[in-house]
Amino acid sequence: MAHAEFWYEFASTYSYPAAIRVEALAAERGVALVWRPFLLGPLFAGQGWRDSPFNLYPVKGRYMWRDLERICAALGLPLTRPEPFPQNSLLAARVALALGDSERPAFSRAVYDAEFGRGRSIDTPATLGALLADVGVAPAPLLARAVEDSNKAALKAQTARAVALGLPGAPCLTTADGEVFWGNDRLEQGLDWARAHDPTAQKERR
Amino acid sequence: MAHAEFWYEFASTYSYPAAIRVEALAAERGVALVWRPFLLGPLFAGQGWRDSPFNLYPVKGRYMWRDLERICAALGLPLTRPEPFPQNSLLAARVALALGDSERPAFSRAVYDAEFGRGRSIDTPATLGALLADVGVAPAPLLARAVEDSNKAALKAQTARAVALGLPGAPCLTTADGEVFWGNDRLEQGLDWARAHDPTAQKERR
Repeated sequence: MAHAEFWYEFASTYSYPAAIRVEALAAERGVALVWRPFLLGPLFAGQGWRDSPFNLYPVKGRYMWRDLERICAALGLPLTRPEPFPQNSLLAARVALALGDSERPAFSRAVYDAEFGRGRSIDTPATLGALLADVGVAPAPLLARAVEDSNKAALKAQTARAVALGLPGAPCLTTADGEVFWGNDRLEQGLDWARAHDPTAQKERR
Repeated sequence: MAHAEFWYEFASTYSYPAAIRVEALAAERGVALVWRPFLLGPLFAGQGWRDSPFNLYPVKGRYMWRDLERICAALGLPLTRPEPFPQNSLLAARVALALGDSERPAFSRAVYDAEFGRGRSIDTPATLGALLADVGVAPAPLLARAVEDSNKAALKAQTARAVALGLPGAPCLTTADGEVFWGNDRLEQGLDWARAHDPTAQKERR
């Protein structure tokens, strides 16, 4: 089966519609997804940015918010700007990574819905615990596991892999043959590519 | 008739496929286009950039070139990276602006084809004169008109209008109701918007 990795950052605005859309798009194409939460901070720091480029470059920021309004309106998704922007996404990313692959997508969508759909803060154990409960996961043991050293190290390693893969931002799709597709507006193209360049299918055909 | 303005910069990579695609997309939707060459330099200087952000931020630059390769391959367009990148686009923009609205699109496509299709420099009167001749315009008088003070001032004014409209980069489509759509990947959406929000059609319906 073709597969792809979906890379997302909870503070990233365009990751919101992408996270809502990507699973159905992958299923339509028979592509198996692995969800990869990571942190943009280290990528941005490598480019000299200590804040979101949408704050550092207000012209881009104003454009992005209007573009996102149009995208969400077309999808029928609510959009409420969280304050402050960007949100501190460290704990949410640790929690998402501590979950199993099967639980991670629903939790991640719940975080985005709280943050950008309802404008909530996503940086406290209480908020994230409530979202875990909403998706059927017992909060206390998961929140404890999220802040264990091994999970912190795993998130660092995952972010280092994002840097090594050359991701320029979030969201991204990466494919088995090393392609990177950046942006909510590249999901269809990235998944089509994953299906067309599926290494397991080539092996089966031989 | 619905209309939209197509804003482009000759040094801009994503303006290349956009310039090749936009006219057919507009015609399919019954949208009249005005082609607006402008300069990104003043926009970028306002954000503190003295070079293309694709050079200043190599991770973004590497991604952009690969993304553009995939886009051009899918469209059957040749792609050759011009050296140096970005090209000096000042004279080309002046020439394009000095042309009439009806001659500007074909000349502009010819410039992009030379620059990104064949990797040629686009900064000399000789090169631009040959491209003018290719599209049926006598080069000498047009090249003379391009560097008259009034035409230089018109390009400055057009670029100032791009800044005032809040364009974050190139290419962009702008609509009569003040929307901005940035990127080759927003052409369809911008033209659909122009058609759906056509102020002349609303007047006719009243």
